[in-house]
Amino acid sequence: MGAGVDVVGIGNALVDVIARVDDDFLTTHGLVKSSMALVEADRAETLYGAMGPAVEVSGGSAANTMAGLASLGSRAAFIGRVGDDQLGEVFAHDIRAAGVAFDDVAPGTGRSGAPTGRSLIVVTPDAQRTMSTLLGAASELGPDDVDEALVAGARLTYLEGYLFDREAAGEAFVKAADAAHGAGRLVALTLSDSFCVERFHKPFQRLVADTVDILFANEDELRLLYAADDADEALAVAGGFCALVVMTRGAAGSTVAADGRLHHVPAVPVDRVVDTTGAGDLYAAGFLHGLVLGLDPATCAQLGAMAASEVISHVGARPETSLADLVAPRLA
Amino acid sequence: MGAGVDVVGIGNALVDVIARVDDDFLTTHGLVKSSMALVEADRAETLYGAMGPAVEVSGGSAANTMAGLASLGSRAAFIGRVGDDQLGEVFAHDIRAAGVAFDDVAPGTGRSGAPTGRSLIVVTPDAQRTMSTLLGAASELGPDDVDEALVAGARLTYLEGYLFDREAAGEAFVKAADAAHGAGRLVALTLSDSFCVERFHKPFQRLVADTVDILFANEDELRLLYAADDADEALAVAGGFCALVVMTRGAAGSTVAADGRLHHVPAVPVDRVVDTTGAGDLYAAGFLHGLVLGLDPATCAQLGAMAASEVISHVGARPETSLADLVAPRLA
Repeated sequence: MGAGVDVVGIGNALVDVIARVDDDFLTTHGLVKSSMALVEADRAETLYGAMGPAVEVSGGSAANTMAGLASLGSRAAFIGRVGDDQLGEVFAHDIRAAGVAFDDVAPGTGRSGAPTGRSLIVVTPDAQRTMSTLLGAASELGPDDVDEALVAGARLTYLEGYLFDREAAGEAFVKAADAAHGAGRLVALTLSDSFCVERFHKPFQRLVADTVDILFANEDELRLLYAADDADEALAVAGGFCALVVMTRGAAGSTVAADGRLHHVPAVPVDRVVDTTGAGDLYAAGFLHGLVLGLDPATCAQLGAMAASEVISHVGARPETSLADLVAPRLA
Repeated sequence: MGAGVDVVGIGNALVDVIARVDDDFLTTHGLVKSSMALVEADRAETLYGAMGPAVEVSGGSAANTMAGLASLGSRAAFIGRVGDDQLGEVFAHDIRAAGVAFDDVAPGTGRSGAPTGRSLIVVTPDAQRTMSTLLGAASELGPDDVDEALVAGARLTYLEGYLFDREAAGEAFVKAADAAHGAGRLVALTLSDSFCVERFHKPFQRLVADTVDILFANEDELRLLYAADDADEALAVAGGFCALVVMTRGAAGSTVAADGRLHHVPAVPVDRVVDTTGAGDLYAAGFLHGLVLGLDPATCAQLGAMAASEVISHVGARPETSLADLVAPRLA
């Protein structure tokens, strides 16, 4: 599949189950706003039972980024595991319909006996999303799922930090990174989540120092990675290891550290922020698309901001309109 | 479950799979705009494969109406069949989370070995929805699924015309209507779809003449029911049989025939019509809620128009906001 794609993403294949809630819901159920927590089946059932009527939309951080890249016009592929069930069909349909190469039947990348993973996402009135993820089949991703030829043929390999929660997925990371670097390709990583960084800050530090060429993180994640008081300080540290460090700052935009220089780029204002789910994922899509086109870091960051602005304007973490059309004026 | 509810609905338990398409999609796949066609698994697979990334939301005509009634503050119950699968869980969760009593495990109303039914819904730029429905487990609804005590205890029983496509469901209709009338309750029917009326216009005529107290239909459906040239003429005929005939006219509003008099009520304008899926279902919810409250036909029609205006303002056929809050000013 997809030999010679621009970007291959490796991550959790998830279907998002999205409902609006009041802030009280977070308190009642012990949820930390804007975070992602892994949950077991019992906890997922309790939370789902307490949620109001929901909408199901395909998600998964790196998968969202690949969908964004395809919408922008890059050739993207995704590696992740779904179950042999209805939600697995939904995930596979949606990512292929988005134009992303996805092989769910080959050995290794194939379907699992476990049910397809889902992320229970509650959106509070401030448009913040809080996620409780039941990984299911996604948790079975391991080194065997990494198609080395696909990775070696891709200009960029994009790794989702969430995968670090499991050892086998961490091994898949290493295998993919080795295959990419062996072919002279670049490896990008997103830190994904503050708690995730806290749990694995040593392995993440090593990965960033030894392996990662392009690092995506928000301010909190970067601060936590280096136990720094200040995000800019952490950015400087990371900049010593990676060719590119891209730090998102929410409504304040983003800062890119490249070749010892900092580039500040504002966010793209939207009429109404409806649901921030996927903001970071789509920012990464825009940025990576810029890299595929060989653009400078500031322009890449602008494309990221444009792609993010589309996805926070509606419910769901994947683009609903053509991002290629959206960014065309900027690239003209 | 739910003894003494206000309204019990009997219909197809479906999950909607919604994607936006261009008009070309309808031509290419031989779809008739705004209609509902029943499809087999092969055809569903072809259509789904051709559709872009989709959103899954619980649907089903009478189920949507019951969700609307619950949102308005009426006590509602639903009878329909889901499969023992992920989409069945989604349907059951969503309708209960909407506040509707639904029993998917009792004998009769229980789960089926067939997969949960789904409706592939494509929405064209004019916001019209075109549906291709794979009934699955919903097609197994029969007389045994009708809980006579529930029906006898409900003030109104609401039947979905789509069910007429199968004999066993038609028998379920008769059993429910008998139970309702035996307890001195009212029976409402929606004609659901033009093709459905064409296929079954004789049985529908008999049902309307012998059994139905309150009939919901749009202009086309009513015309086709009596092979009339003119919708108003058909309305007059139906008015000779039913205590209430409620004819929806899309953007032109609705006309109610009651006790030999006609009441014209305008539609409620909306900023932007996004997706007309569920417009008729939610109109019925508003109207039935008015009947539950003992209001006059014109006020019932106004509540119907208000409920419909909410559901056409977003993707999906169930309310996203509290309809009770929406109609509160009208009921103050």
